[in-house]
Amino acid sequence: MTRLSWGMIGGGSGSQIGPAHRIAAGLDGHFQLTAAALDIDPERGKRFAIDLGVPNERAYGDWREMLESERTRSDRLDLVTIATPNDTHYTIARAFLEAGFHVLCEKPMTMTAEEAEHIVQIQAETGKICAVNYGYSGYALMRQARAMVADGELGHIRLIKAEFAHGFHADAADADNPRVRWRYDPAQAGTSAVFADAGIHAFHLACFVAGQTPVGISADFASLLGGRQLEDDAMINIRLNGGALCRLWTSAVAIGRMHGLTLQVFGEKGGLSWQQQHPDQLYWTPLNGRTQIIERGDAGLSASAVRASRIAIGHAEGLPVAFANVYQDLAEILTAERNGLEPNPLALDYPNAMDGLWSMRAIEAAARSARSGGQWIDIQS
Amino acid sequence: MTRLSWGMIGGGSGSQIGPAHRIAAGLDGHFQLTAAALDIDPERGKRFAIDLGVPNERAYGDWREMLESERTRSDRLDLVTIATPNDTHYTIARAFLEAGFHVLCEKPMTMTAEEAEHIVQIQAETGKICAVNYGYSGYALMRQARAMVADGELGHIRLIKAEFAHGFHADAADADNPRVRWRYDPAQAGTSAVFADAGIHAFHLACFVAGQTPVGISADFASLLGGRQLEDDAMINIRLNGGALCRLWTSAVAIGRMHGLTLQVFGEKGGLSWQQQHPDQLYWTPLNGRTQIIERGDAGLSASAVRASRIAIGHAEGLPVAFANVYQDLAEILTAERNGLEPNPLALDYPNAMDGLWSMRAIEAAARSARSGGQWIDIQS
Amino acid sequence: MTRLSWGMIGGGSGSQIGPAHRIAAGLDGHFQLTAAALDIDPERGKRFAIDLGVPNERAYGDWREMLESERTRSDRLDLVTIATPNDTHYTIARAFLEAGFHVLCEKPMTMTAEEAEHIVQIQAETGKICAVNYGYSGYALMRQARAMVADGELGHIRLIKAEFAHGFHADAADADNPRVRWRYDPAQAGTSAVFADAGIHAFHLACFVAGQTPVGISADFASLLGGRQLEDDAMINIRLNGGALCRLWTSAVAIGRMHGLTLQVFGEKGGLSWQQQHPDQLYWTPLNGRTQIIERGDAGLSASAVRASRIAIGHAEGLPVAFANVYQDLAEILTAERNGLEPNPLALDYPNAMDGLWSMRAIEAAARSARSGGQWIDIQS
Amino acid sequence: MTRLSWGMIGGGSGSQIGPAHRIAAGLDGHFQLTAAALDIDPERGKRFAIDLGVPNERAYGDWREMLESERTRSDRLDLVTIATPNDTHYTIARAFLEAGFHVLCEKPMTMTAEEAEHIVQIQAETGKICAVNYGYSGYALMRQARAMVADGELGHIRLIKAEFAHGFHADAADADNPRVRWRYDPAQAGTSAVFADAGIHAFHLACFVAGQTPVGISADFASLLGGRQLEDDAMINIRLNGGALCRLWTSAVAIGRMHGLTLQVFGEKGGLSWQQQHPDQLYWTPLNGRTQIIERGDAGLSASAVRASRIAIGHAEGLPVAFANVYQDLAEILTAERNGLEPNPLALDYPNAMDGLWSMRAIEAAARSARSGGQWIDIQS
Repeated sequence: MTRLSWGMIGGGSGSQIGPAHRIAAGLDGHFQLTAAALDIDPERGKRFAIDLGVPNERAYGDWREMLESERTRSDRLDLVTIATPNDTHYTIARAFLEAGFHVLCEKPMTMTAEEAEHIVQIQAETGKICAVNYGYSGYALMRQARAMVADGELGHIRLIKAEFAHGFHADAADADNPRVRWRYDPAQAGTSAVFADAGIHAFHLACFVAGQTPVGISADFASLLGGRQLEDDAMINIRLNGGALCRLWTSAVAIGRMHGLTLQVFGEKGGLSWQQQHPDQLYWTPLNGRTQIIERGDAGLSASAVRASRIAIGHAEGLPVAFANVYQDLAEILTAERNGLEPNPLALDYPNAMDGLWSMRAIEAAARSARSGGQWIDIQS
Repeated sequence: MTRLSWGMIGGGSGSQIGPAHRIAAGLDGHFQLTAAALDIDPERGKRFAIDLGVPNERAYGDWREMLESERTRSDRLDLVTIATPNDTHYTIARAFLEAGFHVLCEKPMTMTAEEAEHIVQIQAETGKICAVNYGYSGYALMRQARAMVADGELGHIRLIKAEFAHGFHADAADADNPRVRWRYDPAQAGTSAVFADAGIHAFHLACFVAGQTPVGISADFASLLGGRQLEDDAMINIRLNGGALCRLWTSAVAIGRMHGLTLQVFGEKGGLSWQQQHPDQLYWTPLNGRTQIIERGDAGLSASAVRASRIAIGHAEGLPVAFANVYQDLAEILTAERNGLEPNPLALDYPNAMDGLWSMRAIEAAARSARSGGQWIDIQS
Repeated sequence: MTRLSWGMIGGGSGSQIGPAHRIAAGLDGHFQLTAAALDIDPERGKRFAIDLGVPNERAYGDWREMLESERTRSDRLDLVTIATPNDTHYTIARAFLEAGFHVLCEKPMTMTAEEAEHIVQIQAETGKICAVNYGYSGYALMRQARAMVADGELGHIRLIKAEFAHGFHADAADADNPRVRWRYDPAQAGTSAVFADAGIHAFHLACFVAGQTPVGISADFASLLGGRQLEDDAMINIRLNGGALCRLWTSAVAIGRMHGLTLQVFGEKGGLSWQQQHPDQLYWTPLNGRTQIIERGDAGLSASAVRASRIAIGHAEGLPVAFANVYQDLAEILTAERNGLEPNPLALDYPNAMDGLWSMRAIEAAARSARSGGQWIDIQS
Repeated sequence: MTRLSWGMIGGGSGSQIGPAHRIAAGLDGHFQLTAAALDIDPERGKRFAIDLGVPNERAYGDWREMLESERTRSDRLDLVTIATPNDTHYTIARAFLEAGFHVLCEKPMTMTAEEAEHIVQIQAETGKICAVNYGYSGYALMRQARAMVADGELGHIRLIKAEFAHGFHADAADADNPRVRWRYDPAQAGTSAVFADAGIHAFHLACFVAGQTPVGISADFASLLGGRQLEDDAMINIRLNGGALCRLWTSAVAIGRMHGLTLQVFGEKGGLSWQQQHPDQLYWTPLNGRTQIIERGDAGLSASAVRASRIAIGHAEGLPVAFANVYQDLAEILTAERNGLEPNPLALDYPNAMDGLWSMRAIEAAARSARSGGQWIDIQS
């Protein structure tokens, strides 16, 4: 497989998400970092890019400079990853899509549903990829769960129980900690804090596994630490278009929950249970049967799960591989495109602009419901 | 310790709850079954009582006969357990209380909050005990959790996450199974099915551990199997009078959840996590510290937990012992009373008529909220 | 069922094992404590027996007095439990068996294999029951495992991995703690400490589940705390007569292991895994299949497991019930005998004098092997 | 950091271990695959190398050709990985070391202790790196455990319990499966099968964490599937030079154990427990204290654990990262060397030729002990 050339915006020195993207993109060797604008500080960003092996002339001081230079090159970047602060995603993603680049945008894709609608429209018009990094959907056993649901093994899906609860914003002494505070400031974080930041991954997984999208939302938001303007805990009920009901809990004050992303799916023929902290086991209970432990790497898994797995059964494969699966999806599609071939249909499951849009719709509806005392809000599609 | 004389109504041959009470009452040898009206079929009930060692003349055909005969005896029953069908609890409990007996009533204590108010009133007037069997609160580590909260180890309680989700009413083929169907029939079950039957235990535990009572409720009820008039899944948010928010999920369609009673308590200084299926471990995470596993039987537990424990660390103690702890509480109180002594204050934590009343208030408020689309309902006390 | 009359020797005030026997014997109401010699201090023992409801004239100062008085009564004790210090078991069990009583003896049944041979002989001659309290074999899922093996579900058993490792003798500061020290003193404990005390339960379970007895043993004993004459850690390999190999680890210095009794059984058609700390789940992996969780209370368990279970699925049933199952076995046999009926064959699985003998043979062989540098020792039967 | 140039021998198309090395080497971007001889089939190997981005002129048909060509280049390879069949490791490693290359050799480093002594000697003479891929020692929490032991947190280490038990060679129908059969053929596998293949990882971890090496070994080997000449199950006792006793179980017939690499370390001040399947939690029980869960990513971990960790707490980091840590160690050392600096001392913990030698000594001693009925064998160093 020819190496694809890859550009990166944001994710410079000191960033948490930057290395995660570089590991994910590099893990299979599909992508080579070729151009970058990594930092708000132009010089620091350039130096860091060069350290990472980017040629000097493609190490940029900011994304606009990068866009201007890269758009006219004949050796075009195959993919551009956007890992800048949230409120810049829309502008940058839009600009690169309009310039004809494929894009992988960190979540959230935008700050509002309206902007997200716009991105979806541009993406459709340009025919370019706009992936959004709901990377937990790259776990092999989440793809297994999706395949089991799609194949009808659970029958009609009745109920989904999704959680993303952690305890890392539970310390009252952090009130002035800038790393925490901005998340609860509407001016910087928008209409939602913990749901938009953490719970939205549980929301995406629920929709991804069920193969459904939301039609109505009722939410209760709570600010359990004094002085927070946005919610640090939320309970959200979601009606999905295939008839499933999703109950989603998300929290930032759940001391002792290290990560807390879990998914349970209950259909008429059986139930599934999975927790992100131990992602290599999926618990499957057929109706009136015994619970079985589906191990990643087992014989008999779905083609999508086999494809998303790298190492032998009995090992923790981990988040870096899950995340790399999104890059692998894109690499296969881009390589097929380059060779004039149809892409592997299994590669099309990567989280995309529509997922980015549904997330924003869900966030806005949940916030509106919470403000109105839990009233059910219809979601327009 | 002198053996106490014990009477039982209901719980005859074929009953599930009957043996559970006999095991719990007999486990420590405090109570001797002395009088009984065990069955709707008088002859079958008498025979079974005699088989269980009840003297012939105190084996009764029904509870009224038992009441008439027992009320005038000089060797009075120390305690009467009521384990009849739900809709008879109120009448029987009332009659025995008014006749001056101490009572342990299976839950629910009554079918309505109004009836429950009445029982509380009678109980107060007569000064007799009216215990209600929320027996999970007898687990040693639930008493430990309550003590930790009361001692301020968690600081202010912000959030409680309680669950009781099972999958035993998930089979559509059970639509006409009489053992299941009545639970979803308002004429027999009242205003709520799974919350009143299962979730109410989670509700009681949350209040018990927090030492708080509800002030407001918002609920979403769902009937996920076609044709059910009452809910088989519910999400309930509860505001408690000490400022805690409780989020409670209960379900009867969660295939794979065998029991599903869990409790998580999050305060400003730390979080607790417990699951009934493995009741001998309590997970405690102090703020900014590592999670610790508190084992039942550990050195350094609260006096209430030590007292509720019978066997050495490292063994599953199990539900029979939890349940026996409620009987032990009553035995200690009754023995102290007989000897003119003050009871052990730790014995006063048994679930009582006020718990029975709060449960009915919560059920009625939740049902009302669910009917009104999730509106918050104030709970009058 | 008529109540059986029960006598108890040892297990007085302050004893740990005494209450465990009383709970187990009382839990189902089969046995009524009718005669007792509970304590080395005659007066204290009599007072405690009377407190427990024993009639004055059957509260004895020592076991000899009890034997003399009870042997001539027409209302004979149905069962006598022996819970005295280890080195008295042989003498007392022998005396009561020879006087025609059924006996339940705490383990170890004797201090040597020679004595154990003698008990087996007396037991055979008198036709009386001599049960020995390897009570972990009363767990419902251990009976399920035994039934699965007996029914051939695992095929030929190749390997058993058994453990009983705890950390409660790991504190060097306990060197002079009398509660610990005697266990490592050959004069009081015999030829083995942790294997005879703890590991022997794992040995019994392995034989019980496999339905096999030992033919050869190789052992490595270690004294990991300075100054101990007997082993506080041992690794033992055992060849069983049905061809299985058992590898058994036992330790008293494994800090963090609270109980540490586990059993894994590997046959040609599948493997089983169980741990005593969570006794209500048995993990079953058929060859080339997925691991299944067998829950106590599941539909489809063996008749022996169903009979050993009291409460609904999803609850911890706990050690008291396991232990009560041994008493239940004896109660059924004794009641059948009284009524001139054949006993329920499932009741015959209680641990008996032959188990007591095999244990002593295994302990002596292991100690001999350990002294000889791990040489394989044949076990004579 | 400048990219290092990396060569690879073996690990071609269809190999399992090949991709694992490429992921590990590529994950952090330190190494660029620059030269390769990947396959026994020269043409297939060249094509695959070119597909992986190796320049045509450095894609070789076999390792000798590669050695001849590469030894004279001025742009020398920084590191050569050897992932060929086991019996070729010695010859290839020796040749490359003697030619002055740094080497990372798959385990086993050699087929005999004598060969291993030779490699150690060559390595010492040349001053080149000879790493051996005991990659599980790259897990962050294994490095944490080693640091805790080294820092004295456990005090004197008394006992180590190590296991590597799986069930993937348990199917009698696999008797003629060539992928399994060769492992039990002394001509191809040497003197040991499951200990040399699987258990040796547990051995390495035990030594790595304890910071000790073996002085004596006693082993029991069993061939539990008919017709096998080498052991498919083994129990091994090992005395270590710091006074610890290690008990190690390894099996290939333990159906239901997916991976089964676990480590428990018991010292005078506390005990540690870890299992590879859930590698991000380390259980730590201080003497007389509660068990604590040490999470990878926690504040307060050792510098070595922090350095070995890439992603935030609460995620499974997984084996690819553990494995990448060995490559990271080498990259740091090689980069320091290139820059004339002292290497980071923490980088020196990578598994090396001495580990390869100790492994071969342990295997040979264990096999000899097993043949002699479990006699203790001294290990010469």
